[in-house]
Amino acid sequence: MHRAGEKLRLGAFFNPTGHHVASWRHAQSQADAGVNFEHYVEIAQTAERAKMDMVFLADNVAVREAHPEALARSAQYIANMEPITLLSALAAKTTRIGLVATASTSFNEPYHVARKFASIDHISKGRAGWNLVTSALTAEAYNFSRDEHYEHGVRYDRAREFAQVVVGLWNSWEEDAFIRDKETGSFLDPTKMHRLDHKGKWFSVRGPLNIPRTPQGRPVIVQAGGSDDMVQLAAEFAEVIFCAPQTLDQGRRLYAQLKERMAEHGRHPDEMKIMPGLSVIVGRTLDEALEKQEHLDSLTHPIVAREILSLVLGGADLSSYSMDDPMPELVPSKTGGQGHFNSVMEVARQGKLTLRQTAQMVAGARGKFAVRGTPQQVADIMEEWFRSEACDGFNVMPPYLPGALDDFVELVIPELQKRGLFRTEYEGKTLRENLGLKRPENGHRGKPA
Amino acid sequence: MHRAGEKLRLGAFFNPTGHHVASWRHAQSQADAGVNFEHYVEIAQTAERAKMDMVFLADNVAVREAHPEALARSAQYIANMEPITLLSALAAKTTRIGLVATASTSFNEPYHVARKFASIDHISKGRAGWNLVTSALTAEAYNFSRDEHYEHGVRYDRAREFAQVVVGLWNSWEEDAFIRDKETGSFLDPTKMHRLDHKGKWFSVRGPLNIPRTPQGRPVIVQAGGSDDMVQLAAEFAEVIFCAPQTLDQGRRLYAQLKERMAEHGRHPDEMKIMPGLSVIVGRTLDEALEKQEHLDSLTHPIVAREILSLVLGGADLSSYSMDDPMPELVPSKTGGQGHFNSVMEVARQGKLTLRQTAQMVAGARGKFAVRGTPQQVADIMEEWFRSEACDGFNVMPPYLPGALDDFVELVIPELQKRGLFRTEYEGKTLRENLGLKRPENGHRGKPA
Repeated sequence: MHRAGEKLRLGAFFNPTGHHVASWRHAQSQADAGVNFEHYVEIAQTAERAKMDMVFLADNVAVREAHPEALARSAQYIANMEPITLLSALAAKTTRIGLVATASTSFNEPYHVARKFASIDHISKGRAGWNLVTSALTAEAYNFSRDEHYEHGVRYDRAREFAQVVVGLWNSWEEDAFIRDKETGSFLDPTKMHRLDHKGKWFSVRGPLNIPRTPQGRPVIVQAGGSDDMVQLAAEFAEVIFCAPQTLDQGRRLYAQLKERMAEHGRHPDEMKIMPGLSVIVGRTLDEALEKQEHLDSLTHPIVAREILSLVLGGADLSSYSMDDPMPELVPSKTGGQGHFNSVMEVARQGKLTLRQTAQMVAGARGKFAVRGTPQQVADIMEEWFRSEACDGFNVMPPYLPGALDDFVELVIPELQKRGLFRTEYEGKTLRENLGLKRPENGHRGKPA
Repeated sequence: MHRAGEKLRLGAFFNPTGHHVASWRHAQSQADAGVNFEHYVEIAQTAERAKMDMVFLADNVAVREAHPEALARSAQYIANMEPITLLSALAAKTTRIGLVATASTSFNEPYHVARKFASIDHISKGRAGWNLVTSALTAEAYNFSRDEHYEHGVRYDRAREFAQVVVGLWNSWEEDAFIRDKETGSFLDPTKMHRLDHKGKWFSVRGPLNIPRTPQGRPVIVQAGGSDDMVQLAAEFAEVIFCAPQTLDQGRRLYAQLKERMAEHGRHPDEMKIMPGLSVIVGRTLDEALEKQEHLDSLTHPIVAREILSLVLGGADLSSYSMDDPMPELVPSKTGGQGHFNSVMEVARQGKLTLRQTAQMVAGARGKFAVRGTPQQVADIMEEWFRSEACDGFNVMPPYLPGALDDFVELVIPELQKRGLFRTEYEGKTLRENLGLKRPENGHRGKPA
């Protein structure tokens, strides 16, 4: 049960031109969004005016591999500004909204990741979050001196140790380690600095991290994905979950599973906010919303849709099937992402969808739950998910930007506020405070150095 | 010879509290500068108002190892905001000044470095520069799963391949690869995307980089250091040199050597701007300047000074010597930095300095050339260096911040402008244009994909 007065948490997920695969062609999108900083300032400030919890930036560390025809017609995940630098620049252009970006554990060093997010937490005065993922694309491995990708389970093994090291490094300094007394000349208390001295299977990291403890104690840890491996890791570390249930039922199952598993690690259910991705197209009437959807879908080239489906299914090769065949039964690849695999295959099977239909469904929302309707209809569904304990909020994925974000903010947010489901002012100063997450202890208090 | 009308290039080198080791104790410094973003905004905007070429941020990827007594009394290089995130946030708070940060080649991946600086170049609309260094601190190795540091020559071997990969990745996309035609649905021309397919001794990187070619063609490559290995690498890649000659004579020798070596790589001397570090204390009278210096030095604890000397000399252990012994003859360590070693030892030998005197000299300017005097005296020396071809400009290192930067901007810059030695308005829109560096070709023009 949500606590009395508990409200929805809302993230603003920003693919450069929007979440729909054909978004860049829409009249209300910014086609050069991937290199247009002013565009990001505009949408971040829109989300902040609407009191949304956080901006959320996804990432891949490679140009996505695709059929040349699909590549030529796609804007997403090809060539864009890098999320950590973009997030930091947005910190300087916003004052209240949380700032979350993805950094993969597969081809990074924990010291670099811990340090950069800690730095953004200082720059933003307590608004940073790290979205911990493992890399799903084999193309990334090739950019980091590897001939092949890590298998799924191996990636999560590395990710777990990576997260341990990052959290350990964030605890390098006690809150009051820095004295900075100009008169006495005492700058810091070395007994309040702690080495990590981590020696593990994947990493050996001495520490300490060369940045003071951050305004939030440490940045918020977000986790994306939906596989069993991910649930296991999330139960231990994640404070926010960005997941992809396709139906209310899937949402409730995952929600219950995550909150249950947390208990095994001694964590209280309130210490994690579960926020499924939600693609929203809103109209003043249902017909208007459906027309918007049809227009967007009409802009999608079939090969682009098929390639997105392939990507969402962890890299499955679909090129040998006819678009009008029934959706084939596939097995998940060993190296690809598995977050959406089961949920998409289940919906295709139950709906007896063709490959084309499945591709169209996924191309529109890229494997995330999608709603279309009036502000009331959209709010009804969001409320139902929230009250049914299928979520603590949503990561809202506007299909095109800035247009669909403007619509959501103008039409849906006031409806949610009217129902008492969403804040009208930020409760706190930090992301952690706004999400209702407690400030973590660093574990050193009172212990000798 | 400098070209007719050629002017000084001026960087603003920002250690958090200032360049002097005791700067944080000065009344006109910001003691919490390392985590105070507003402080950085203020000093960056001051430098921009003064039309300086660039902000320059140094870096280490570890807490510097030091005697606990020195650690407790030091503010520098202990725990501060991370430079790439800081630089990106400053991009959002400035509009004309160049933005340079250090990223070491020793414990990074070239894909990450290439991508982040390219991103800052987009965010800042062409103002980014990468200061390529190798890591001098053994403590850094311990944070990146290594038991020992690379030796000096090995570091430069890695750095050279690293730079090749970064430049190669920056050339992934032709200028006009992105079409973004909403009508036809053509987003990009895949024939204008180029893989790197690099397979070398240190790295194997396929590419392409997942960000379009940047506003400057590519970020400016800066290089810091002063060893023979560094000169060799700089001759090949560097467009700006941040070096540490202690005397006019040392400056002229290094300048001639660098410009000569460039020719071996088919580069024109104008393609590199040599900017020695310059620590300036300016007063309305010479006495005022000297008093400022004495006051700063009086704030310095002797052990802190000795530890800084040790650091500047590449980690030499000085704890067994008495502070009043003559400066001992040392040999450079195999793993430490060598950039300042020869120049500092030469000055100590010629001046028959004690350990204390050498430490005091270095603690004040941390191994960089230091001038104290009236605006006219400071400008005289800067002009002499420039006209004698000991430099193309300076990387100005205010001993304390913001105070000493304010003084430099208020007193010295107008004097330089009066002499026609420094601009009164930015000439161009990008860092490259302001530095008078040409826009690089990407090598793919006209070639098949």
